[in-house]
Amino acid sequence: MDCWDVIIVGAGSAGLAAGIYAVRSGLKTLVLDEKLAGGNISDAPKVENYPGFTEISGRELSERMVSQCKNFGAVVHELELVEAVRFEGEIKVVVTNNAVYQTKVVIFATGAYHKTVGVKGEKEFHGRGVSYCGVCDGPFFKGKKVAVVGGGNSACATSLYLSGLASHVTIVHRRATFRAEHSLVLDVTSKFNVNVLWNVEVEEIKGDSKVRVLAVKNNVTGEKTEFDVDAVFVQVGEVPNSVVAKTFGVETDAAGYIKVNMRQETSFSGIYAAGDVTTHPVKQVGTAIGQGITAALEAYNYITVLYKTAPKNMG
Amino acid sequence: MDCWDVIIVGAGSAGLAAGIYAVRSGLKTLVLDEKLAGGNISDAPKVENYPGFTEISGRELSERMVSQCKNFGAVVHELELVEAVRFEGEIKVVVTNNAVYQTKVVIFATGAYHKTVGVKGEKEFHGRGVSYCGVCDGPFFKGKKVAVVGGGNSACATSLYLSGLASHVTIVHRRATFRAEHSLVLDVTSKFNVNVLWNVEVEEIKGDSKVRVLAVKNNVTGEKTEFDVDAVFVQVGEVPNSVVAKTFGVETDAAGYIKVNMRQETSFSGIYAAGDVTTHPVKQVGTAIGQGITAALEAYNYITVLYKTAPKNMG
Repeated sequence: MDCWDVIIVGAGSAGLAAGIYAVRSGLKTLVLDEKLAGGNISDAPKVENYPGFTEISGRELSERMVSQCKNFGAVVHELELVEAVRFEGEIKVVVTNNAVYQTKVVIFATGAYHKTVGVKGEKEFHGRGVSYCGVCDGPFFKGKKVAVVGGGNSACATSLYLSGLASHVTIVHRRATFRAEHSLVLDVTSKFNVNVLWNVEVEEIKGDSKVRVLAVKNNVTGEKTEFDVDAVFVQVGEVPNSVVAKTFGVETDAAGYIKVNMRQETSFSGIYAAGDVTTHPVKQVGTAIGQGITAALEAYNYITVLYKTAPKNMG
Repeated sequence: MDCWDVIIVGAGSAGLAAGIYAVRSGLKTLVLDEKLAGGNISDAPKVENYPGFTEISGRELSERMVSQCKNFGAVVHELELVEAVRFEGEIKVVVTNNAVYQTKVVIFATGAYHKTVGVKGEKEFHGRGVSYCGVCDGPFFKGKKVAVVGGGNSACATSLYLSGLASHVTIVHRRATFRAEHSLVLDVTSKFNVNVLWNVEVEEIKGDSKVRVLAVKNNVTGEKTEFDVDAVFVQVGEVPNSVVAKTFGVETDAAGYIKVNMRQETSFSGIYAAGDVTTHPVKQVGTAIGQGITAALEAYNYITVLYKTAPKNMG
């Protein structure tokens, strides 16, 4: 059976940063991803808030991280799905659709995915006006008209964030009331440039080279309307990919995010987590890589202490 | 008096990342640095572990972050020293050697500096064999002979880390015993490729285009010797720049690092900290930028809730 120092599950920003640091520290490192390597950021046409790059496509940024990770000597397996993790004393056994591995440490960097509304135009205009992240893409629409789809905390928070940047924010919500914190609802409804369309569902996102029009339908009256927008922010839920981690009992919060501390330790010794799958309050490339780096160096310390091969508390 | 949303003290990696996110979120943002902008990383000739760049000079990386921060509209004042922070209700008053500002939030990203041994050759060869960070620069000396100067926890931890990469590690310590955790001492002294020179002080670091020789002197016998090395890792102490933060009572640990939680909050409401000045266990560019980003977005939420102008819990 293949034996590794560290297996990183997920080859997005957090996993690749962890891989770079783990292998550079001399650990035998395997990175697995059920899809192609790169993670969610690969889908972003334009990233301008990752420190170091004034502007870079998400694909180029992720490709750079993948080759950096491989060049140092990490082994990256794409299209390999982790199905289970078992424990044999201090050794972890990682079972995939293709193989069974032994490892001293597992780092979960499995990310999260945003739920879609599933209408015509949503996929086609993703990255050309359709976005799932206000902080990431809001500043691209300064002074423009935007719509936010949803009625929970994230929809309200995103609307408020965008209200400080966009000229106007229209919230499109399929129910008659928000399902968000009261103070957040008060804040959002008191903004002069935010209006809410209640009981309204998205029918289609229209445009040419980019988003131009949002077509909606009132689910009480049946009335259909269209209005001009430059961007549609879909905020109908996010799901952390913590299924495998939960099978062996890692602690998560109610929404399924893996609980971590500042050392990226989970509730299981030798199991770390980093990036969007964790309870860390911010989900950005820059925060994911910070967590990945920390997870790798802490994993290194863990292996060292356990197997008496090296240090702790490194600068 | 100039009034700001956020004043960031320190224009290193953490401060610049915070600046990028703060100003991009629409906050009126001032970044102050007592030196030139860029931070410690500016001194690193070669960085190969910042995700996204296979190899970049520290100067270029920091210059890219500085211009990115300025291009979004942050105001950056170099050579302006913060002397005090006072509180007037929820408003913070920042006093510098040049001006007095009001602000809603202060983010301390003041970093830390490494103590030097102060011998001939140390400054000249900094970045050409003299290093203050094993995790950063150790992998450049795979299979080479290195020396570590010091005898505390960080010297022992660095020696152990390097023992997994270098062919041989010589620890040069001016005392007859280590001042490090017992388990760490046991680990380091049991490594086959680590030896310790006790009661020995560094006299000079010699070389040509890079480090070649370490000249030392036994402070008991007076005997002088020289030996070949490819790198000298100086680990004689690190000092966090938390002087101003401590004047108004921010909680620090015994060594002076500012205590933060996962949201980069300090013990004072509206005062955040990020990067090497904090108690975060890892000090790397990638972790500093993650913390800077988090501090900026959390500061944004704080301002919003307090001044009723925007959201919280953003993705």
